[in-house]
Amino acid sequence: MAFVLHPQLERDTFAVGDLPLSRVRLMDDANFPWLIAVPRRAGAVEIFDLDAREQAQLMRELALLARSLKDRTGCDKINIAAIGNMVPQLHVHLVARRRDDAAWPRPVWGALPARPYGDNERDRLIAALRQRILA
Amino acid sequence: MAFVLHPQLERDTFAVGDLPLSRVRLMDDANFPWLIAVPRRAGAVEIFDLDAREQAQLMRELALLARSLKDRTGCDKINIAAIGNMVPQLHVHLVARRRDDAAWPRPVWGALPARPYGDNERDRLIAALRQRILA
Repeated sequence: MAFVLHPQLERDTFAVGDLPLSRVRLMDDANFPWLIAVPRRAGAVEIFDLDAREQAQLMRELALLARSLKDRTGCDKINIAAIGNMVPQLHVHLVARRRDDAAWPRPVWGALPARPYGDNERDRLIAALRQRILA
Repeated sequence: MAFVLHPQLERDTFAVGDLPLSRVRLMDDANFPWLIAVPRRAGAVEIFDLDAREQAQLMRELALLARSLKDRTGCDKINIAAIGNMVPQLHVHLVARRRDDAAWPRPVWGALPARPYGDNERDRLIAALRQRILA
């Protein structure tokens, strides 16, 4: 069974690039710099659906993405979560949080309506993240 | 600098046991079977504050805890998150979610007031989880 990005994730995000395991996407919400990492394993729902090697690779990729977000944004905290109550395909959120952002200190899920990016702001952020992540 | 569990985490939880890296605690909230894994590394705030070996170990422990929670509770989904906006000490939530729980499909953080366990219910759950996790 081939991996296909869940249509809801496709709709809500823009392409950033592929790491060895995960497809990386930017959530279209200018409230928070917010990435999603989706392991390209068809049918995976929980982290224990990945084998041990894939789990280790996912952790390496999450650490890289978290550090890249932090370095790029100078944020106060990275929030990382695999929730999946609405979209079952295994995907991990990485959100750059600031003490002065609109939802702090609450988690971002369901906190605010998404605020779509302008094209320029989005393209600049994606380019900067690609440089750090895919180098 | 020695590791000391953050006093807020201490207050909100009960001891389950220590894995090679993480201290495991049960959140005192009978709304959801809810574990917290706290890597015993003083000063760690983000996952990239752990070195590569510790990151890999943390992932192994999270997968074990997630599967143990799922096996014990028969839940529909495991939610896993490192947020840390309120308590900076690195800690990872693992929450067993059911489609009929009181917060579904919302994330649990801030969704409901905690509902403290009765002693028997708590002790039974801790004993069952210890058997799976520390065996």
